[in-house]
Amino acid sequence: MGDHDTIAAPATASGGAIAVVRVSGDRALELCDCIFRGRERLSEGAGYTLHFGCVVDGTRTVDEVLAAVFRAPHSYTGEDSVEISCHGSSYIVAEILRLLVDVGVRMAEPGEFTVRAYLAGKMDLSQAEAVADLVASSSRAAHTLAINQMRGGYSDALEGLREQLLQLASLLELELDFSEEEVEFANRGELERLMQRLGEELGRLRDSFALGNALKEGVAVAIVGAPNVGKSTLLNRLLEDERALVSDIAGTTRDVIEEQANIDGVPFRFLDTAGIRSTDDRLEQMGIERTMASIARARIILYLTASADLEAAGSIAPPAFELTPGQKLLTVVNKIDLCPSLVLPPHAVGISARSGEGIDALRRALREAVDTSALYHGDAVVSSRRHYAALADACAALDRARCGLADDLPTDLLCEEVRHVIRHVGTITGRGALAPDDILHNIFSKFCIGK
Amino acid sequence: MGDHDTIAAPATASGGAIAVVRVSGDRALELCDCIFRGRERLSEGAGYTLHFGCVVDGTRTVDEVLAAVFRAPHSYTGEDSVEISCHGSSYIVAEILRLLVDVGVRMAEPGEFTVRAYLAGKMDLSQAEAVADLVASSSRAAHTLAINQMRGGYSDALEGLREQLLQLASLLELELDFSEEEVEFANRGELERLMQRLGEELGRLRDSFALGNALKEGVAVAIVGAPNVGKSTLLNRLLEDERALVSDIAGTTRDVIEEQANIDGVPFRFLDTAGIRSTDDRLEQMGIERTMASIARARIILYLTASADLEAAGSIAPPAFELTPGQKLLTVVNKIDLCPSLVLPPHAVGISARSGEGIDALRRALREAVDTSALYHGDAVVSSRRHYAALADACAALDRARCGLADDLPTDLLCEEVRHVIRHVGTITGRGALAPDDILHNIFSKFCIGK
Repeated sequence: MGDHDTIAAPATASGGAIAVVRVSGDRALELCDCIFRGRERLSEGAGYTLHFGCVVDGTRTVDEVLAAVFRAPHSYTGEDSVEISCHGSSYIVAEILRLLVDVGVRMAEPGEFTVRAYLAGKMDLSQAEAVADLVASSSRAAHTLAINQMRGGYSDALEGLREQLLQLASLLELELDFSEEEVEFANRGELERLMQRLGEELGRLRDSFALGNALKEGVAVAIVGAPNVGKSTLLNRLLEDERALVSDIAGTTRDVIEEQANIDGVPFRFLDTAGIRSTDDRLEQMGIERTMASIARARIILYLTASADLEAAGSIAPPAFELTPGQKLLTVVNKIDLCPSLVLPPHAVGISARSGEGIDALRRALREAVDTSALYHGDAVVSSRRHYAALADACAALDRARCGLADDLPTDLLCEEVRHVIRHVGTITGRGALAPDDILHNIFSKFCIGK
Repeated sequence: MGDHDTIAAPATASGGAIAVVRVSGDRALELCDCIFRGRERLSEGAGYTLHFGCVVDGTRTVDEVLAAVFRAPHSYTGEDSVEISCHGSSYIVAEILRLLVDVGVRMAEPGEFTVRAYLAGKMDLSQAEAVADLVASSSRAAHTLAINQMRGGYSDALEGLREQLLQLASLLELELDFSEEEVEFANRGELERLMQRLGEELGRLRDSFALGNALKEGVAVAIVGAPNVGKSTLLNRLLEDERALVSDIAGTTRDVIEEQANIDGVPFRFLDTAGIRSTDDRLEQMGIERTMASIARARIILYLTASADLEAAGSIAPPAFELTPGQKLLTVVNKIDLCPSLVLPPHAVGISARSGEGIDALRRALREAVDTSALYHGDAVVSSRRHYAALADACAALDRARCGLADDLPTDLLCEEVRHVIRHVGTITGRGALAPDDILHNIFSKFCIGK
């Protein structure tokens, strides 16, 4: 990765009315001209122009197409590029790619167009990663996360702090050159203030991951309750208008099959749980263990009781498990149509999963249990595990550097701690230095072909 | 259908790196400007130019996109059009369509873009139908059929003959105006020669449907033979490299599940058959009846014998059914590895379905059993049932007209017969007069959205 040889890939899924083949590289225009017949040659066309013509295999016409011409550096990759729009037949796409390969184009690796965009400085690593998230986004929340990140998001803010830190580190290094003279080029007070601001920003970003990850992956909701309180009926009710959307979500790999639904732009995923009760049965015990594991990773516990049980007991039994910090409990009483005179405890939502009564109120309660104000008010929210790890490392390094500063650590050691912070922050945006090949490979191999 | 109100639809399947939303109509540029922010307004852009910018929902950015501007009449539909390339997220596509609908764009019906192209005279009906075939094509043969038809194919030739006939019909009608004077404006000899040429052309096209239909739907091959000669093993062997391609073929509706495979660009479909033998069992008898029905609609009968049976009997028993005209019999001896000294009868292909020996020769024999020279040498080949029916009607009407001419039918009756021919030929291309709404609906409702 890093050459400018000319690459090509289908950029659209098969099955539509039209398909697009993307070509990029030093010889993109000239090589496309080998298979394209239009009014003028693509290599004579200006950037940002469209050309109607035919893709030909010798004298045989493969398709009538539109070719879009992009000239370096004004293209996605920063290289000369062509996007060929053809009829959406998988045969035609395969033929166009075959013809391109025959004249010397190479099939692109997954994510290779975006790697080139990164290497050409068209976007930083964090923005490049957001492209993949954007393509995969299927809810307003996931989309907002991705587009904020793609349009600069926190990388601009981080980068500003990183550059100031870099400047101070240079001054510290200058002191080392004059170490026998005991001068201080780097103002220790300024360094401390800068590190404090960076610490606040890094900490805030690190802590935003809990929300960002939940929004990206879907907010996990465990529906728990005794057997026969109506958990399955409720799940089906919550999903009923969402099936079409759910089936649209690209394959996500998880151990357990979970159901997904968007509520007011926020993706939720409902975890399957078995009923909880004391038992000696080994198999049932295993089911309960799985349930407890589901509960542990849920952000919201939807605790379901049947109205008759509440009426008989007079109150709702507290759940048989402890909530972890950050988890929210939503108490829901089902089958309220069977006990019309029942008075619900405050904060409990009454529903009939069968008739649909109260389901809208439950949806609202679920939606309100997720505070997305930070996201929708434009605050940076981290949703990438890689960024979270880098932020956590940066925070730890920063703490060490601040301790070093407070303890009057010798300049050379202090300088090394500051360099650690700079390096960790830099890996998020990849702007400081080109990211190593293994990191690039790790990031971009998860992209789809043609991106 | 026929307004120029502005319509929009997704033109690509969901799941790719990029997606395209197509917008067309009198106000396409102006309405897209309501949701697009770029360096200049699309309505100020020249045709065939690309514009980088953002789709916005108020102050919120939905995506960074490329908008392609087309100006009437130089677009697919002949109207002002915009194609918006966005990131391939189904959420983003849905948002862009929602925003367009909010500013007054209507969601397009299936095929509505191509209907407009037809109504604007950008293509005739036969060419419009070929667009759908082209999108669905998944083999070289089906692709060649479709692209020949889309690029004019036989409609140009037919249209020339139809126009000459139309001229003669006008002269015949002129005679009616002067009927008391017994003049002949229309040269009867010229009329006869023209009808003969038209008859030859129509007959050739009508007869080409057998090949065209087989190539479009897949050449039907019935694998028949006694139980345990290895029919299933052979089928799996023939399909083994093709599974990936097969799964790519868009859903075709047929009563029986059939397996498809491309051999050298020609699609074949292999019909499931049960073993044939005499039986009194009622259920087995029904299976045999289904087999006989499969055999009746196959173009190629792959008649399979096991080598041991041939060795024991000394010759291959003739098949227990009659071939219909146009059917080809391919005699194949399986399990030749078990009888290495066996001498095969001439014309029989020896194979081992288990080891793969001889399978390439069998593929070649299957491929050679389909004469595609007409198609690949550029002769017009009809593959549409609608065209076939119109051609058959036109041929029948032409026969009546020629009989009328020979029998010195009164001019008014002759004129009517000629008008019938003209009308039937005209329905193929739809050029003579605009096709009625029900025919248009029938044709275009089978198109995909966005085409």
